[in-house]
Amino acid sequence: MKQDIQFVRRDELKTKPDPNSLGFGKYYSDYMFSMDYNVENGWHDPKIVPYEPFMMEPAAMVFHYGQAIFEGLKAYKTGDGTIQLFRPEKNMKRLNDSCDRLCIPQIDEGFLLEAIKQLVIVEKDWIPQGEGTSLYIRPFIFSTEPYLGVRPSHQYKLLVILSPSGAYYGDQLSPVKIYVEEQYVRAVLGGVGHVKTAGNYAASMKAQEIAEENGYAQILWLDAKENKYVEEVGSMNIFFKINGELVTPQLNGSILPGVTRDSVIQLLQYWNVPVRETRVSIEEIFAAHERGELEEVFGAGTAAVISPVGELTWNGHSIVINDKQIGEVSQRLYDAITGIQLGSLEDPFGWTLKIDGVKAK
Amino acid sequence: MKQDIQFVRRDELKTKPDPNSLGFGKYYSDYMFSMDYNVENGWHDPKIVPYEPFMMEPAAMVFHYGQAIFEGLKAYKTGDGTIQLFRPEKNMKRLNDSCDRLCIPQIDEGFLLEAIKQLVIVEKDWIPQGEGTSLYIRPFIFSTEPYLGVRPSHQYKLLVILSPSGAYYGDQLSPVKIYVEEQYVRAVLGGVGHVKTAGNYAASMKAQEIAEENGYAQILWLDAKENKYVEEVGSMNIFFKINGELVTPQLNGSILPGVTRDSVIQLLQYWNVPVRETRVSIEEIFAAHERGELEEVFGAGTAAVISPVGELTWNGHSIVINDKQIGEVSQRLYDAITGIQLGSLEDPFGWTLKIDGVKAK
Ligand SMILES: Cc1ncc(COP(=O)(O)O)c(C=O)c1O
Ligand SMILES: Cc1ncc(COP(=O)(O)O)c(C=O)c1O
Repeated sequence: MKQDIQFVRRDELKTKPDPNSLGFGKYYSDYMFSMDYNVENGWHDPKIVPYEPFMMEPAAMVFHYGQAIFEGLKAYKTGDGTIQLFRPEKNMKRLNDSCDRLCIPQIDEGFLLEAIKQLVIVEKDWIPQGEGTSLYIRPFIFSTEPYLGVRPSHQYKLLVILSPSGAYYGDQLSPVKIYVEEQYVRAVLGGVGHVKTAGNYAASMKAQEIAEENGYAQILWLDAKENKYVEEVGSMNIFFKINGELVTPQLNGSILPGVTRDSVIQLLQYWNVPVRETRVSIEEIFAAHERGELEEVFGAGTAAVISPVGELTWNGHSIVINDKQIGEVSQRLYDAITGIQLGSLEDPFGWTLKIDGVKAK
Repeated sequence: MKQDIQFVRRDELKTKPDPNSLGFGKYYSDYMFSMDYNVENGWHDPKIVPYEPFMMEPAAMVFHYGQAIFEGLKAYKTGDGTIQLFRPEKNMKRLNDSCDRLCIPQIDEGFLLEAIKQLVIVEKDWIPQGEGTSLYIRPFIFSTEPYLGVRPSHQYKLLVILSPSGAYYGDQLSPVKIYVEEQYVRAVLGGVGHVKTAGNYAASMKAQEIAEENGYAQILWLDAKENKYVEEVGSMNIFFKINGELVTPQLNGSILPGVTRDSVIQLLQYWNVPVRETRVSIEEIFAAHERGELEEVFGAGTAAVISPVGELTWNGHSIVINDKQIGEVSQRLYDAITGIQLGSLEDPFGWTLKIDGVKAK
């Protein structure tokens, strides 16, 4: 697809939020990228336009039958002012995997990445600079055709919005309490758990809400068939360090193949730290703790990067991990990944994509 | 909740579509009901307004995290011009069950039903009259708060739109070919299959699309844990007549408790026809056919009422049911339910709700 991206300027720019109280996903930049799909023209009308509300039909299919998928990645400002993205090709690829599962027409990955680069360049002053901050990039696609029959929509909208963000779990890498869920489930083989579709998150809120009421930060999901095998956390994949070895649930068709998960595995291999993707039961984890071998537990995801787990509750039993302290490997991974993302460490993997020739102030 | 429903008149009414080519879900009436939710005011601002596009924020949570639920019921015009609804309290109740599972604030069921009645009265000229036609009523709720963190939204919109509809599967009760799905699944215990949320339908499209490409009208879903037990069809529950007895999957937490399913069961009991809600494996069904005991198979749902199944394909084997003819019980149920809905038969169950004192032309 060779299409020019139109630029529609807005009259007045917004006041930028205080960089110290960004939070996550609360503020949106001045512009967004927009592209539409219909059967006649395919994906068309790519443009960078002011971030602002748009019109939807009451019968638009997304409200009824939920074809909606998204991605999440970040733009970082390095010490010398260079802007870079972290493994964005993987997000573009996963976006198309999500499209495929949800019967949404494929996008041109190279073109969308180019559009994102252009949008980030336009919005470079929105990239915060400081420990744990970044410009969160949210590409998403949803069905827009007004029709009430159940079938894939014939019309879609793709938007990319930008949100300057602080650290997801507050400013410090502080271990969280996690509840191992036994009643509700997130996903099952043959379903949509392995892709980033809106319905997965809607389905997860009830258990998450109950867990929060009981003082837990997050849910650890078990598999839906046997309620036995560890899957993942709210918006992170999960790792366990048992007797020196890192273990993480294998990609089994119901968990999301996280970009951070993949980066963690590659880093561990690079460091010659043993790491294994396997089916792992929650029983094994508690047994390892019993033996004194459960050394670290942490989540891995774009928003939080690495999120240490200090306590796990399952079936009425709570275990404390590593004295509620940040583990050595957790910290090393966090430092390495954020270091590469922020350009303060070398990138031996070619993970970062510099946005050419732009120096932000 | 005692709130007045505001009425906002539109300048010009639409031209009504040809009653012979209505199809399903293609046309929308002149007005819709609208109500909003926020934390300060709860559900507020109920109004009947012109059906027309409205503004949404790009960051509105429904596009990202999919909190969206709906209902589907119909208004009928009887021979003497009375307008009636069919068991609408059950849809109101199920709407709230869906809200509960999706962390959406409860609505006042009585008030919403009152609002629907008022809307249908305003739009009475949109109710088509004729075999298999009706005014389809679609209440739905979705999250509107602009926020990218994963948690229940603090703002929602409820809309009720109306769509004059012909018979869902064409004009005749004609037996369809159904594919028993073994790879994809619709829902699992602990998930959201027992409520009407948008994501269920998005997740079902891929299998449905493949089935259609192979010449099947619908999917019959099996359970997600063992891929063995019958669940339901696209938007219908399923019944089997085996050796004189009607059998339907029991409500197991992953299938939708259909209003039509319940009506079918009550009618059969009223007629003293044996009916059983139970766990039923697809193997049993094929074995019953082998023994010559599988007499009828049909789907039951608001859109199609009763939809006879003429052929089932599972695991490479196809069986023809009742010579691809409409079964006796299927036809009797269809006639009874539509007769009650259209007022041509007596309603011994108190299922119909007349909309008081309004005679449509
Ligand atoms: C359900 C789920 N699991 C895992 C992850 C981690 O994936 P990534 O590392 O690509 O951000 C995410 C999201 O961001 C997620 O939503
Ligand atoms: C998944 C599903 N199952 C069954 C049904 C049948 O339910 P009802 O008879 O209430 O229309 C429907 C819907 O309409 C449905 O969407």
